[in-house]
Parts: sequence; C-alpha cells; structure tokens
Amino acid sequence: MKIAVLGGGSWGTALAAHLARAGHPVRLWLREPELAARVNEAHENPTYLPGVPLPAGIVAASELDAPLQDAEAVFVVVPSEFCRGVYRRLRDRVPDAAVLVSATKGLELDTLKRMSEVAAEEVPGLPLAVLSGPSFAVEVARGEPTAVVVAASAPGVAEAVQQAVSTRTFRAYSSDDVLGVELAGALKNVVAIAAGILDGLGHGHNTVAALITRGLAEITRLVVGLGGRADTLAGLAGLGDLVLTCTGHLSRNRRVGQALGRGQSLEDALRGTAMVAEGVRTTLAACALAERAGVEMPIARQMRAVLHEGKPPRAAVEELMLRSLKRE
Amino acid sequence: MKIAVLGGGSWGTALAAHLARAGHPVRLWLREPELAARVNEAHENPTYLPGVPLPAGIVAASELDAPLQDAEAVFVVVPSEFCRGVYRRLRDRVPDAAVLVSATKGLELDTLKRMSEVAAEEVPGLPLAVLSGPSFAVEVARGEPTAVVVAASAPGVAEAVQQAVSTRTFRAYSSDDVLGVELAGALKNVVAIAAGILDGLGHGHNTVAALITRGLAEITRLVVGLGGRADTLAGLAGLGDLVLTCTGHLSRNRRVGQALGRGQSLEDALRGTAMVAEGVRTTLAACALAERAGVEMPIARQMRAVLHEGKPPRAAVEELMLRSLKRE
Repeated sequence: MKIAVLGGGSWGTALAAHLARAGHPVRLWLREPELAARVNEAHENPTYLPGVPLPAGIVAASELDAPLQDAEAVFVVVPSEFCRGVYRRLRDRVPDAAVLVSATKGLELDTLKRMSEVAAEEVPGLPLAVLSGPSFAVEVARGEPTAVVVAASAPGVAEAVQQAVSTRTFRAYSSDDVLGVELAGALKNVVAIAAGILDGLGHGHNTVAALITRGLAEITRLVVGLGGRADTLAGLAGLGDLVLTCTGHLSRNRRVGQALGRGQSLEDALRGTAMVAEGVRTTLAACALAERAGVEMPIARQMRAVLHEGKPPRAAVEELMLRSLKRE
Repeated sequence: MKIAVLGGGSWGTALAAHLARAGHPVRLWLREPELAARVNEAHENPTYLPGVPLPAGIVAASELDAPLQDAEAVFVVVPSEFCRGVYRRLRDRVPDAAVLVSATKGLELDTLKRMSEVAAEEVPGLPLAVLSGPSFAVEVARGEPTAVVVAASAPGVAEAVQQAVSTRTFRAYSSDDVLGVELAGALKNVVAIAAGILDGLGHGHNTVAALITRGLAEITRLVVGLGGRADTLAGLAGLGDLVLTCTGHLSRNRRVGQALGRGQSLEDALRGTAMVAEGVRTTLAACALAERAGVEMPIARQMRAVLHEGKPPRAAVEELMLRSLKRE
C-alpha cells in the first residue's frame, strides 16, 4: 500500500519508520526542507527523533504534491492546531480512493471538534479512520512491542487499515467508536499534566494511581455523555494511553506538569521542548465539552485553573484530594 | 476507636502508623518478639519498613491477647497463607462487637477462597469489611496522599470503617462489592509479575501499557463471571491498584518478574526479599478460578507456565503478543 505520512514530528516520523519496515512504500511530508533533506540523506530526524535510525526507504519531501501522488493511505500526524489547514490543502490533491488516517491527539479549540470531524468537513467523501493508543514514538520507531486501536465508522475501513499497519510487534485492534477513541486520546493529556504536577510537587505513586483512576472516570463520563462507549475507555485508547502518558518518562504533557509542580511558570515549562504539549490547549476544550455535556470534570477544571488562571498547583491538588467522602 | 492491627509486615506496620496518626489507640501484633520490642522502644520496624519513623503511640506485642482486648476494630494484614490460622485464633479472643477488616491481598490456594470468606468461616457473626486499593506501604507510612476502597456487604459497615480510617491525606471510598474488591487486589499481582518480566526483558512503556490494559480486561472478565461488578474494576481497587503495582518501583511482585525477565530462576528471584510476593501463589488460584468460571485469562495462563512449569519468559511474552488480531 502506497502511504503518505503528513507531519514529521516524533510521532509522524515514528509511524513512517514503522510503516516502511512493515513493507510499504512511505513518503513523509515535513515542513522544513532541511529536515526533509536530513531524512533522505542521513536517514535520521535529528530534531524530533534524534539518535533513531530510520529506514532508507522513506522518501521525505517539504511540499505536498509528490507525497500524495498515487497515495492509497494518508496518515495525518500534525499538531491539532494545524490540522484544518493541512486537510484543506488535501482537498484537491488527495487521490479519490485514498483512506485518511488521523493520528493526531487533540481537539480544535474554537469549534471543539475532533480531528476526524475536521477531516470530514475539509475533505468530504473519503474513507476515514483514526489511530490511537499507548504508543511513545521513540519506542515504536525502535520496534518495541506496541498495541493500538484503529477506529472507523464505515464498515471495513478500520479493518483495512488494521491489516496494513499490523506487524509482529505492532498490533492494531479495530473499533467502530471513533468519538470514544479520539476523545480518549485527546483528554488523557489533561490528566497527564496533573500527574506531572503531582510528581513535581514530590508526591508518590499512590497519589498518581488515584489520579489516574479518577481521571479515567471523568473522561469516561464525558465520552459517554457525548455518545461514545464506556468500554472504549477501558481499552488501549483509553486506559492504556492514559497509563502510558501519566507514568512514562517520555510524555511531554507530564513533563510540562512536572515543571509546573516544581514552581516554574507555564511559559518556562513550555520553553524547554521543540515538541507540542497538546494537553495545555486540550484542557480548555475539555472544560468546554464538559459544560456542553453537563458532566463534572474536576481534574480538568483544576488544570484549567492552574494552566490558564494562575492557580498555584498545590492549591489545585489540595482541592482535588479533599473532595467529600463517598461511594466509589 | 480502639484498633488492633494483626501483622507487622510493611503493610500492617504502615496501616498501624496511619491509624495511630489518625488519632486511634493502636496495638500492633507481630510474630517476632524482638521486632515488637523494636517498635515499642525505637519506634521503627527495621525489617519491613526500615527508615520510617513510627508514631510513639503504637503498642506492639508478639502475643494476641493484649492487642485484642477491648478492640473495636481488628485489621488483619498477614500473608494469605497464614490468614486462616490467625482468624481461627481470633474466634475465642475477639470482642463480640468488633469489626474485622481484611487488608490482605491474596487467595487461599487450596480452597480458592477470598480472605473475607476465610474470615467468615473462622469467626462467624462479626461485621466484616475489606480494605484495598493503590497503597504502597512506605508511602502511606510517610503520609503521602492515598485513596483506597473499603467494601462490606452488610449495610453501614463499610461506612463505619471509612469514617474511622479517613484523614486529610488518606481517603477511603465505600463499596458493597466485596468479591470484586478482593479479587481485584489479589489478581493484579499476577499481571504485576508479567509487567516485571517485560521490564526485565528490556521492553518499553508501550508494551507495559498494553499489558496493563489486557490485564485489567481479563481480571474484569473473571470478576464479572464470578458475580462481581465491572465498575469495581474501573475504580481504585481495580485499575488504580493494577497501575500502581505494574508501574511503581516499590512492587515486590513486579520485582520478582523483573528478575525472571533478566534470566534468574524463580528461587533466586524470591530469595532477595524478606517480603512475600503473593502473585506467585495467586497465579495458580487465578487459573483455577478462570477454569471454574469458564473465562479466558491468557496472561495468568502464561504466568503459570513461567512460574510453575519452567516456560522461558520470552516465549510467554511472544505468545501473548502474537494473539490474532481482532476487535477490541
């Protein structure tokens, strides 16, 4: 299957590496021409995936036309704030029969739309799937065993993508709960920032485990309130990705939280990284969605207060801990 | 509330410390007279909780009568293999109105009974609760924020224990799903050994996150098959404790798995610790319960093969990864 991967951040580059090793011809679109040249010549992405050798078969380009030519599947892996623009540019360029696969974990801030909704608006009529789950980019690039979910609402689409991406060490499971899979992937970043704050404040594993449990509960409430399924949240895209992001040392959102917990400003916390911490923006979207659905999301609300209203992290944690005792 | 804590391992000692700080008169029963003397004189348990100062109010004893006298609540925190013997000794000693609280996470191997079932058989007629959830002993002893579940089937019992144990930093939620809470606490140790094996083999966070997700799914299947509730598994006693045990560096069961993954024998893996790795025994009970309930537990089955049938850990992991692709 001829595959175009749009987005040369760490996750896009890792997916391109995986898909090339899975035997597909892969073309990778990156914005920076110098980076495209480095991928083609040195088979490395020194900015977003330093030290990881990439398959020589990946052909990188900094303009869209060549990667999209004859593409049978187009993976879109750009930060959520750039997704609409990229999808819009696809409209006249993407081959008629191509499958679009969104691998971005985020929400459009002003519309509260999921990335597959943005894609369907900008490139109507194409088969559409989303890929999510517990997958640190560098581990996928290195071939560590990884399991993800591919969701699509149209029959057969998820299964076709599942077959294309699966290998011995990269297992894709299929689902038809697109909303649940996408919201889970976006919202876990909010909880990851909270987990980082706990760590930065010096709290232990017990506290983080309690946060993860409460975090999954509030994400599940929102997803179910918006029409998704609770069992999606108990799966790889929900629980699996939440656990990874809240406990693994490679999570950017968690690192931002750690810096906040240690007393840094948000500005300073975001400065140290070339990568995007989607959770900072997603927190606003989560709170807005919670209001729309009429569900309580105390963790997201406290994170909004810390990230966007200057509330001290310690005060937010205190309020989360001191909720009244009740039945689980 | 006058409280007796029976069992001076790390968890029993930590619970005693917490309950004393919560304002209760606490008497702690330990088997070794020397250790009881150390707790009384140096306010430390150097064998099981080294370096953690204990409240001076804890009165330790190595015989049962004094701790049980006038006790209003009796917390039993001995390894599962000794529980029946301890409960039997309680029968003629425990005050009529006392509440029994089981905080042991394990199953009786030859009967497959939960600890509260053992307690009810040996000390019939007493109000009975179980306490479980994500709670590394040393973090509770140090006062790190922790949230647990107290479950009881008789009305009002869980709530009474909940009120007695809760403080600003130790939050207890109540439940009436005793079976679900107890099985979750026991069975997570099986998955923790598997998580340790993955780490010992050098695998990454993605792989562990996938294991945790699948592990919770198979524990949930078993609990539901035996009459428990799925939502208990999504809570602190299920997901919360599973995440803690599979990702935290303080888990004994995980450490045993790590040693196995690095190529040590089970004998050598168990040698390095004074503490009990309940999961080694619980794996056998889990497989037997799965057969009884007619549910699939592939992780428990592979762990039984590794722990008790000499199967190489790498081969077990391969088989778990290569299960056929399907819907989630």
